[in-house]
Amino acid sequence: MEQFEVTSADTIAAISTPPGTGGIAVVRVSGPEAISIVNNAWKGKSLHSVGSHTVHLGSYLDTSGQILDECVATVFRSPRTFTGEDVVELSIHGSKWIQREILADLIRRGARVAQPGEFTQRAFLNGRLDLAQAEGVADLIAASSKAAHTLAVSQTRGNFSKEIDILRDRLIEFASLLELELDFSEEEVEFADRQKLLALSTGIINKIDRLSSSYSSGAVLKEGVPVVIAGIPNAGKSSLLNLLLNDDKAIVSDIPGTTRDSIEDTVEINGILYRFIDTAGLRDSNDTVEKIGIDRARLLMKRASIVIWLIDPTSPLPPQQEEIITFLTDNPESRLILLQNKSDLPTSRLPYLSQLLSSSLSVSNPPLTFSTKTAEGLPELIERLTALSTSDYNPENELIITNIRHYEALKKGSESLQRAIRGIEDGISGDFIAQDVREALHHLGTITGAITTHTLLTSIFSRFCIGK
Amino acid sequence: MEQFEVTSADTIAAISTPPGTGGIAVVRVSGPEAISIVNNAWKGKSLHSVGSHTVHLGSYLDTSGQILDECVATVFRSPRTFTGEDVVELSIHGSKWIQREILADLIRRGARVAQPGEFTQRAFLNGRLDLAQAEGVADLIAASSKAAHTLAVSQTRGNFSKEIDILRDRLIEFASLLELELDFSEEEVEFADRQKLLALSTGIINKIDRLSSSYSSGAVLKEGVPVVIAGIPNAGKSSLLNLLLNDDKAIVSDIPGTTRDSIEDTVEINGILYRFIDTAGLRDSNDTVEKIGIDRARLLMKRASIVIWLIDPTSPLPPQQEEIITFLTDNPESRLILLQNKSDLPTSRLPYLSQLLSSSLSVSNPPLTFSTKTAEGLPELIERLTALSTSDYNPENELIITNIRHYEALKKGSESLQRAIRGIEDGISGDFIAQDVREALHHLGTITGAITTHTLLTSIFSRFCIGK
Repeated sequence: MEQFEVTSADTIAAISTPPGTGGIAVVRVSGPEAISIVNNAWKGKSLHSVGSHTVHLGSYLDTSGQILDECVATVFRSPRTFTGEDVVELSIHGSKWIQREILADLIRRGARVAQPGEFTQRAFLNGRLDLAQAEGVADLIAASSKAAHTLAVSQTRGNFSKEIDILRDRLIEFASLLELELDFSEEEVEFADRQKLLALSTGIINKIDRLSSSYSSGAVLKEGVPVVIAGIPNAGKSSLLNLLLNDDKAIVSDIPGTTRDSIEDTVEINGILYRFIDTAGLRDSNDTVEKIGIDRARLLMKRASIVIWLIDPTSPLPPQQEEIITFLTDNPESRLILLQNKSDLPTSRLPYLSQLLSSSLSVSNPPLTFSTKTAEGLPELIERLTALSTSDYNPENELIITNIRHYEALKKGSESLQRAIRGIEDGISGDFIAQDVREALHHLGTITGAITTHTLLTSIFSRFCIGK
Repeated sequence: MEQFEVTSADTIAAISTPPGTGGIAVVRVSGPEAISIVNNAWKGKSLHSVGSHTVHLGSYLDTSGQILDECVATVFRSPRTFTGEDVVELSIHGSKWIQREILADLIRRGARVAQPGEFTQRAFLNGRLDLAQAEGVADLIAASSKAAHTLAVSQTRGNFSKEIDILRDRLIEFASLLELELDFSEEEVEFADRQKLLALSTGIINKIDRLSSSYSSGAVLKEGVPVVIAGIPNAGKSSLLNLLLNDDKAIVSDIPGTTRDSIEDTVEINGILYRFIDTAGLRDSNDTVEKIGIDRARLLMKRASIVIWLIDPTSPLPPQQEEIITFLTDNPESRLILLQNKSDLPTSRLPYLSQLLSSSLSVSNPPLTFSTKTAEGLPELIERLTALSTSDYNPENELIITNIRHYEALKKGSESLQRAIRGIEDGISGDFIAQDVREALHHLGTITGAITTHTLLTSIFSRFCIGK
């Protein structure tokens, strides 16, 4: 690890549980003085004399000797702790007043308020986990769906780090072969060595590129698969959004600030988080404001992972069909689910669907008969959504990256390596090639923290919540 | 304890930490199957084999064998636990998703979601704490000031319960003396016995009455001392409220729904919680709506513990003085703090104050020179507030009741006892007197839970938060 200034001489403290009032709250103290500081406030068995990983009931007294709480202290002795330092966790009554007063008292007794992520940062600095694992911890806490959670668990368990370490080992092997090649470059060496060198480097680049290309899928799984709901005005778009959000399988969460131009909400269905986006009704309009809304809707559809298109059988077919064909012509890669809505109105049921099917319209899946009123077709819709959103990636079996920092490091590593290969092929000076390989090693090293800088660490850990 | 149906055959589970996302969250499981249920989901050391009060790192797997979290389990073995039953506390990553999934998984494995307060209820039913102590736990969690907290801690430590037990013991002594008196009533017994009987009962009643009369002070300490800010329009009332609320010593909290007719906010100063209430400016008005506001202000002043009256020296004195004199005449017991505001305006400083002091106005404290702009006089104001609000009661030295249920039980106990004494004095049948004493014993017994009913327990524990 490169030089990085650490001041873990401090003992830090924070409330690690969510803010607010609850049955209990946990105050975490970590550092060389953790046990002493808590023990000075402790009435009960001396915490100096107890074993690691043991729990003790006692009273927490403030500096004036008044009881702040009857609580439970768990003592963890270095190095087998989360941070690698001595840690005391106080499980206290969850009143805001007690939480505040105990934290304030710990500060008076010599602890310092922990920065966001500082416990995890210490865990990293003490070698308890690497940087990618630490970032996985933050992702784990932020995870709001099964898929995002699975990715984060995989990352905290070090699966991604192992892959990066394998790549770095192969890069080091590459570098040593390169040295060999260069050492003997003035003599007659076997051509096979150079072949092996190129094969190895191509293999590494392929692996890096495969990982970095998983980023778009990974980000989508983490942030939610964007699904745009399109259709002419009054086709039932908002009703469909409500139906999807109020479904029993769904847990609704608000994204503040996103509902200005289009209604948007996230919901987990079958373990996948979706961001459903309701759009302005598509139609020719002369109204300037409405036109802006429709242009925005078309842009959202273009960018979406999936478009659900509601067809209104009580409205003339041709303009709707024309709009769909235009969209598919402009966006041939688009994933479209066509719903023929209002199946609850008997007059508009079968003729329209067959008319649509016999049309020139070419879509991968036939339109589903649907009713936002009776929820007819909802199970089939969810089945198609699940199939489309998991067709590219399966978070349980594959290594998928979700972190833009990792994505950028992989990209840069790949670029450095490509320069190195071109250098070998062009026969340029060995010094320059070795420099490119070192750069590739550096970029991959920043992922797990084998290479760190102060700025990098600050930027990573400041995204954590307090007390973690 | 009277018969009370218990079904602690169930194992219960709940998230005990505040709702929301945090570094960590704690899931508590209690009941005969607590260790088995968690151990079935546990990958790590068998929780059956570990000692009580020990902490273990492991993985929590869902029923399909997928890792839900890497977490820490603390095992507490019956009976030396909070509930008296086997308890496992899982310290998990604080994402909402993980919290929800682990709780759901525990339910699938046979636990039941705990009712609010059910852990504490089990603690009571298993004799780990009495009812007044259990109620103290709820108060402790709700406490929002040092005074309220001190009262709650005292109650959880059983100080109040001990007092009640002493009273009940003396009542039982009373009853036995009564029996003696009655047994020998047909013979010539010493009059001293009867004297002793009456002295004893009077002593008990005095003690009960002193406790029950502490309720109004106790409730005020718990809910906040109501302080009304009065004065003519533009005297600086809202500025004073802001000054008090924004003071460094103050932590502001909103009380939703109370700011319709008067601005009201609570703030802790020197360990006491105050409810400051800003009122409509006092003046003669013909406006109907304004009149209603002024009438309301006068009512609030009447009910307040303390009234801070702002005098505006830039406005004519006589109407203000007249208003103060009228208020003091109507409310002679009122605690008034007079502030001569706007001391920052030099022209209005001294003459006005001396004019006021030499007036016929009789108040316990001389007016303070004050400025809501420069905060001149603020330390003196806070000193007077503290003195006035602690003059009646000192939560650190005295036993003060804060719970209306206890208040009512004490009142009823006192009434029963008074009937018993009158019965002795009137020489009525011993059976009736004994009945009154039994009633008094019953009422006092409901406080600590020596006497309980299902309705009583349900009403008490439903006020708790989930997970406690």
